[in-house]
Amino acid sequence: MTERVVLAFSGGLDTSVAIPYLAEQTGGEVIAVAIDVGQDGEDLNVIRQRALDCGAVEAEVVDAREEFAADYCFPAIQANALYMDRYPLLSGLSRPLIVKHLVDAAIKHGATIVSHGCTGKGNDQVRFEAGLAALAPHLKVIAPARDFAWTRDKAIEYAESKNLPIDVSNKSPYSIDQNLWGRAIETGFLEDIWNAPIEDIYAYTADPSVARDPDEVIITFDAGVPVALDGETKTPLQVITELNSRAGAQGVGRLDMVEDRLVGIKSREVYEAPAAIALITAHQELENVTVERDQARFKKGVDQRWGELVYDGLWFSPLKNSLDAFIGDTQKHVTGDIRLTLHGGRATVTGRRSEASLYDFGLATYDEGDAFDQSLAKGFVDLWSLPSKLASARDERLKGDA
Amino acid sequence: MTERVVLAFSGGLDTSVAIPYLAEQTGGEVIAVAIDVGQDGEDLNVIRQRALDCGAVEAEVVDAREEFAADYCFPAIQANALYMDRYPLLSGLSRPLIVKHLVDAAIKHGATIVSHGCTGKGNDQVRFEAGLAALAPHLKVIAPARDFAWTRDKAIEYAESKNLPIDVSNKSPYSIDQNLWGRAIETGFLEDIWNAPIEDIYAYTADPSVARDPDEVIITFDAGVPVALDGETKTPLQVITELNSRAGAQGVGRLDMVEDRLVGIKSREVYEAPAAIALITAHQELENVTVERDQARFKKGVDQRWGELVYDGLWFSPLKNSLDAFIGDTQKHVTGDIRLTLHGGRATVTGRRSEASLYDFGLATYDEGDAFDQSLAKGFVDLWSLPSKLASARDERLKGDA
Amino acid sequence: MTERVVLAFSGGLDTSVAIPYLAEQTGGEVIAVAIDVGQDGEDLNVIRQRALDCGAVEAEVVDAREEFAADYCFPAIQANALYMDRYPLLSGLSRPLIVKHLVDAAIKHGATIVSHGCTGKGNDQVRFEAGLAALAPHLKVIAPARDFAWTRDKAIEYAESKNLPIDVSNKSPYSIDQNLWGRAIETGFLEDIWNAPIEDIYAYTADPSVARDPDEVIITFDAGVPVALDGETKTPLQVITELNSRAGAQGVGRLDMVEDRLVGIKSREVYEAPAAIALITAHQELENVTVERDQARFKKGVDQRWGELVYDGLWFSPLKNSLDAFIGDTQKHVTGDIRLTLHGGRATVTGRRSEASLYDFGLATYDEGDAFDQSLAKGFVDLWSLPSKLASARDERLKGDA
Amino acid sequence: MTERVVLAFSGGLDTSVAIPYLAEQTGGEVIAVAIDVGQDGEDLNVIRQRALDCGAVEAEVVDAREEFAADYCFPAIQANALYMDRYPLLSGLSRPLIVKHLVDAAIKHGATIVSHGCTGKGNDQVRFEAGLAALAPHLKVIAPARDFAWTRDKAIEYAESKNLPIDVSNKSPYSIDQNLWGRAIETGFLEDIWNAPIEDIYAYTADPSVARDPDEVIITFDAGVPVALDGETKTPLQVITELNSRAGAQGVGRLDMVEDRLVGIKSREVYEAPAAIALITAHQELENVTVERDQARFKKGVDQRWGELVYDGLWFSPLKNSLDAFIGDTQKHVTGDIRLTLHGGRATVTGRRSEASLYDFGLATYDEGDAFDQSLAKGFVDLWSLPSKLASARDERLKGDA
Repeated sequence: MTERVVLAFSGGLDTSVAIPYLAEQTGGEVIAVAIDVGQDGEDLNVIRQRALDCGAVEAEVVDAREEFAADYCFPAIQANALYMDRYPLLSGLSRPLIVKHLVDAAIKHGATIVSHGCTGKGNDQVRFEAGLAALAPHLKVIAPARDFAWTRDKAIEYAESKNLPIDVSNKSPYSIDQNLWGRAIETGFLEDIWNAPIEDIYAYTADPSVARDPDEVIITFDAGVPVALDGETKTPLQVITELNSRAGAQGVGRLDMVEDRLVGIKSREVYEAPAAIALITAHQELENVTVERDQARFKKGVDQRWGELVYDGLWFSPLKNSLDAFIGDTQKHVTGDIRLTLHGGRATVTGRRSEASLYDFGLATYDEGDAFDQSLAKGFVDLWSLPSKLASARDERLKGDA
Repeated sequence: MTERVVLAFSGGLDTSVAIPYLAEQTGGEVIAVAIDVGQDGEDLNVIRQRALDCGAVEAEVVDAREEFAADYCFPAIQANALYMDRYPLLSGLSRPLIVKHLVDAAIKHGATIVSHGCTGKGNDQVRFEAGLAALAPHLKVIAPARDFAWTRDKAIEYAESKNLPIDVSNKSPYSIDQNLWGRAIETGFLEDIWNAPIEDIYAYTADPSVARDPDEVIITFDAGVPVALDGETKTPLQVITELNSRAGAQGVGRLDMVEDRLVGIKSREVYEAPAAIALITAHQELENVTVERDQARFKKGVDQRWGELVYDGLWFSPLKNSLDAFIGDTQKHVTGDIRLTLHGGRATVTGRRSEASLYDFGLATYDEGDAFDQSLAKGFVDLWSLPSKLASARDERLKGDA
Repeated sequence: MTERVVLAFSGGLDTSVAIPYLAEQTGGEVIAVAIDVGQDGEDLNVIRQRALDCGAVEAEVVDAREEFAADYCFPAIQANALYMDRYPLLSGLSRPLIVKHLVDAAIKHGATIVSHGCTGKGNDQVRFEAGLAALAPHLKVIAPARDFAWTRDKAIEYAESKNLPIDVSNKSPYSIDQNLWGRAIETGFLEDIWNAPIEDIYAYTADPSVARDPDEVIITFDAGVPVALDGETKTPLQVITELNSRAGAQGVGRLDMVEDRLVGIKSREVYEAPAAIALITAHQELENVTVERDQARFKKGVDQRWGELVYDGLWFSPLKNSLDAFIGDTQKHVTGDIRLTLHGGRATVTGRRSEASLYDFGLATYDEGDAFDQSLAKGFVDLWSLPSKLASARDERLKGDA
Repeated sequence: MTERVVLAFSGGLDTSVAIPYLAEQTGGEVIAVAIDVGQDGEDLNVIRQRALDCGAVEAEVVDAREEFAADYCFPAIQANALYMDRYPLLSGLSRPLIVKHLVDAAIKHGATIVSHGCTGKGNDQVRFEAGLAALAPHLKVIAPARDFAWTRDKAIEYAESKNLPIDVSNKSPYSIDQNLWGRAIETGFLEDIWNAPIEDIYAYTADPSVARDPDEVIITFDAGVPVALDGETKTPLQVITELNSRAGAQGVGRLDMVEDRLVGIKSREVYEAPAAIALITAHQELENVTVERDQARFKKGVDQRWGELVYDGLWFSPLKNSLDAFIGDTQKHVTGDIRLTLHGGRATVTGRRSEASLYDFGLATYDEGDAFDQSLAKGFVDLWSLPSKLASARDERLKGDA
């Protein structure tokens, strides 16, 4: 039986070229699978046809947008997932979803090989292959760009030699990865980390410094995930889409950072993620209102580790599952409304209300109705300070000895 | 010999009233000590005179601004100190400094009692008393507002009965704590956490939504602390003062949050901290460039704990010292320039350069000159994924058994 | 209606005296509740009668041994709960259970006050009152020994004046807390921390230095808890009871340490906990075999925090629940057999087998059949070392500059 | 100029064969370097001569025992370094020291290549190469056993074909790595993890189950490291050597575990480390006495990470340095005596005394002289429990709503 290869197909030069190349290398048939995670570029039917034109025996398009929003972006909200306190993990979240669909396709089509277009110096190769190792350890993986050291020039030459229907003339100067959860931009001049980004590179966000009227939105959360905007119930996809549009129009969510890649190097990355930043900002404040102090403090370490694991390609890992269990338990009461002002590049919380609030007006107020028993404080302070006091006294005593 | 009481004196109603009251209660003499940490309100000589007029036997004013900047605010930059990822700890940083000067004054004046004006439901009582327990465990502490349950009305009545020179007519509706590192605002209507702050409460920051030209500043760090602005060498106090002014003029550094107090309650706090936010933002990015990945990841937990300890009043604690040792070691190479655009309430990093950079253009670039050996990646990915792969295979195997 | 007080009754001097004293102080009726957590001392019916003789209007005995074993000791096994890496938390585990039954009794008998015999310098007062605050915040708490500063002499005098049926003549020199999970011993001469324990203080364990034949036991775990010994299915209570007997007979489980109390002091504690130490030792090794590396490494921090929370009286806290969720997820596959040799004070693992094992003979063996692909290692090692290598090169470069 | 290769030479088959093989492969000259870290096997001069006989152009023996004890084992004591709570890292500690001497030799002899005998599935290759990457990134590394896939049979055949002076007849059935800090044993039958170790495999420890008299030792620590035994000042090497002998004679320090290797597999390891276990046990207890509670709790996470880093080959890493700074600060007052009974495989602390003790008899005692103010406890307990209490009340309230 002819071997079959499932290829994660983007429609770009690299994966188009990969179709005939993989067929040649493996002597097998190539099935192209394009996953819609809200990347919102070319029409996916055009992409599908291109795959067939390049020689794929089958080409599939999977609309995974609602699934991506609900099962990948929403857990990231619950984990306040910001790698290095900044990056909302947009590529890190989409790769495991893509892997899942590649595995489904491989099973459906009886493929024994899976292929992706990642290079050997990025994080995405790890996310693909760690995901595949976990979900389908029997599948072989080929990454032509990495394993056969393809360059762009080599790819163009090959495409021309094969007469592939790819227009290579108008190459964008930018290398982009984008989906529902945001957009990542890499480009030559940004590799000099002293250079500032220019307005031209952004697509999801308007210039935050342009004067415009603010936009106010009330986000309703239920158990840690957003379920309504301005009182209107929305699906996960609708929440993200609407906030990308509204927060993006106010310039919210631009990020520019030097980042630690898993493969051991630092890289310069520019992102825009309007919905992600707005939602995580709102979620953090609702946690401040509804999550108990010790739980909140410990959760910071859990959130950090969650973000690192997802960044590092370990979405399908035992530790990720256990962190999810922890986080899930903390989110039971993260329910309520956050009012957010979107304006001038800022997403600012201006109000919070919740049936599950742990904020107790009676205990907090300095006005009439104060219910806090201040006589308890002295004993608390004295015993709270006792270990430090004993240690200081010891230090003093030993100094005296010297 | 007459007992002597050193009082942390602010010049306000509570501590003014405390002077004659403490004298009565203890039968002793009261020495008022006012510490200048850049609170920038009333003239400190006026405050000094008021203490004497209220009956203090001595009154001192200590200019601790340069010390506060260098020894308290700058370590907070190195620790990226943001309690609950938001609050730059302005009161938490000033209290240990004040304690230190109170202890100095107590020794100088032969006092056996120290007194402060804090209530029993805030954090500051803990910071005062934990600090005193560590630095001078033999001193007795009296907190009239807490220990004798003073209220504002009771204080006014007492002031009038004693004919104290205090104008109680024009009480501000706001309860403020401010210093070099920022300004905290509490007030009745903000105790309803659904209410938004109003423009009127702010003093350090201009309205970020007003259109104005951006300001660009280059901050030079040496071993984790800022030493120059736009190429000009500055003292710690000068750095903070200038950035409060420049970042404040652009509306940078406003914060509004529900916060976990050490005494076990949640409270609503509004802050403005322009220099603090600008400096920590710049410092974080310089760390991204100069600190190794594993070190950076572990430091997040250290930074968090540092902020919690300082918030919780444990500045003078053994653990704080050990965390300082860790942080100090990480800062050796946090040296270089960060270019920051201050505008519209945002402090945005647009460039970074450093002799100590770990960003390696040759390894990072996707253009010519790429020095990264992609052939290493396959082995790395495979062994990196191996534990998850084995666990997934196990899970699969056991499902088959069931 | 007469107020009713539920008293946690041990049968000893302090809580016997508390019965008439609480009645006097509150003008109410006292209900004595004794909880059997396997303390195995006096007959509980005798204790019950004594409570009535001292004036209790009702006296209850609750056999909570099976519940204690299953719901308190077993989660401690899953968490490898050893406070300060040593102490298996025997008192910390029993107090929340006792609290639960006190609350049940208070509801049943319409009591508004709960009382316990703890002093003000131990951990148990916190465990009682934090538990009560969580489960029944409306109940008032009275701790006579602490709140009325009772001493032993005062208690004896009071007992004699009231003619209470308590024999105070043969006071043990030891202060003991014991239950299924172990036994804690405090006594005067041990308060000198240079003094060694003497053989006389132990009751659960034989002298480990006496020559005797070893005992070998196979413990079968299912999802992290022991379910059989030597192939025979047992209830939780049976597992613990049998191992206390068998491991105790071999001198396993003696501990002697200086410990950090929650109230801020260090104390010297001697424990014996044969079943606890044997079970946790076995459980740790089964985790080594069945839990994935990253999960195991993170779990150590979770386990530590779990132990601290329980020690610190926060069994009924939100963070404890979330840690339980994490731990629960990690235990799914902690299933299999551990063979343990009990001998000479040691519980030594000598074998492990599990259907859920992640140990892969093919990958591990150095003999024939080695399935590990060593060619992957070079790439792994090179990228694994890359961040340190870049940092070292930077350090070297900067030294050159100096 | 002829290329030169520095080879880490053990004297065994693999590295003996490597000498002519490396010369052939590189066309260069081989310099054999044997490092004495207390492995105590063959005479090192014999080993040196063998290297020359195998064709090495130079052969060096470095006595690094005192350095190993002071600079590698002693920091491990301060970090209570037990990987997975068990393994005292004996190989993980010696490899960075060996690397350091290999680099020194490479510089001295003008070598451009370094070679070691590790396979591709163990941890030691990582420790060698990560160390070399950090200390001497310009050196090339060759690992014949891994890179050329040598097997024992292939090595013997090659040795015979070259007439190398190696006796391959009496191969030990055990694969051993041993040094001052302990001994690691791997062998075929132990790869079945249900098999118990047999007495025959041990060399550093006597059978703990044989009856003999106990040995009592007083270990004096200064700033976290042992400086005297039974009152007699010793060098680091003397401390370790004497305790290996005394604790080993009592059967102390045997370990048998399944371990998570860095390369992603689990392996079964048996160790014996009498001095290491005795010293770490004593050190932990001295920390219990002299280190403040919060510092001690945080240090557990630091210690764990230190052990993982060293296990994972990252001795020369920035994070390791920063953890050392933290640990160093905590050890300032870890000074005093620990009395240890060595007997029957157990190292039991029976006494501790220290000028720097934080144990305060006056606060701890329940007898006369109790200085603890129990009236402080009520306020402490109430505020300590407040967050959990508010959360429980919230949970209750929401249940009511449902």
